[in-house]
Amino acid sequence: MKTLKRIAVDMDGVLADTDSHFLTWYYNAYGVQIPYEQLVGKPEGEGFPDKGAAHKFAFTPGFFRSLPVMPGAVEVITELMKDYEIYIVSAAMEFPQSLPEKHAWLQEHFPFISWHNIVFCGDKSVINADYMIDDHPKNLDKFKGVAIMFNAAHNANINHHQRVNSWTDVLALLKSLN
Amino acid sequence: MKTLKRIAVDMDGVLADTDSHFLTWYYNAYGVQIPYEQLVGKPEGEGFPDKGAAHKFAFTPGFFRSLPVMPGAVEVITELMKDYEIYIVSAAMEFPQSLPEKHAWLQEHFPFISWHNIVFCGDKSVINADYMIDDHPKNLDKFKGVAIMFNAAHNANINHHQRVNSWTDVLALLKSLN
Repeated sequence: MKTLKRIAVDMDGVLADTDSHFLTWYYNAYGVQIPYEQLVGKPEGEGFPDKGAAHKFAFTPGFFRSLPVMPGAVEVITELMKDYEIYIVSAAMEFPQSLPEKHAWLQEHFPFISWHNIVFCGDKSVINADYMIDDHPKNLDKFKGVAIMFNAAHNANINHHQRVNSWTDVLALLKSLN
Repeated sequence: MKTLKRIAVDMDGVLADTDSHFLTWYYNAYGVQIPYEQLVGKPEGEGFPDKGAAHKFAFTPGFFRSLPVMPGAVEVITELMKDYEIYIVSAAMEFPQSLPEKHAWLQEHFPFISWHNIVFCGDKSVINADYMIDDHPKNLDKFKGVAIMFNAAHNANINHHQRVNSWTDVLALLKSLN
């Protein structure tokens, strides 16, 4: 039996479009529509006039449950599952109220992912996989396998990891590597 | 800086005394006091007259939140944290209602464990550590590091892993190995 290579896939900013959700929640809470460009190149949350807002949203019930799915994520994950072991690996432990929300979100949008393949953790250095797709350099920096950085406003100026701009890019990159 | 070796520590049956909790819950639900000896050497749940009871309890709200702490666990984990990186790794994903309960349980009994060091997963083959302390052979079988099997009624007849009978044993074994 062929052993499949394993990909650890992040949730926030990768399976879920966290940047656009922050903009929506900011508008709903403050009545101000911040343009995406204002977040680009700044640490998460720092692009908003109220710099504590994003952190507050991340602790607000409902925030993680209502995240929009990243375009193409469902289709490409479905495709990749034919050739790879897909593990969803989310640093959920900082926001404990997110645990049931993230589980329910996966059940709704990715019901074909088995509970065997879901990991909610704190520090991702404990994860053993061949590839890691993540938007946070801190998670990729310690990873022993092939690191793939999913584009997000906060990582725009980070250039020491292979960047992908979309799920279409992920599929193309993995095809080119194998 | 010295890099500490990492120990992945299971919750149910290792940090928490799951066998005695099953016996208590069985008594409360059925009015029958099953002796511990009746569980020994049988797969989890199979030692009870109603073989579906343990599985049902594991899906009942409150079961994981009310588990008793395994004797010595707090003291030995505290001691081990001086020389090792301790990660709590629980296969919680099969019982999603257990996610917030397990988090609250750890907050109550092991408040000195950082959220960085907690992992709730499905399959533990995704875990990268030097040692794994677990009562389930299925988790230890796939582990690449040193496997340590914590004694439990269900694993009494499994002999292909190093067995420890208590947290005192864990401390003595790790001292003997290093």
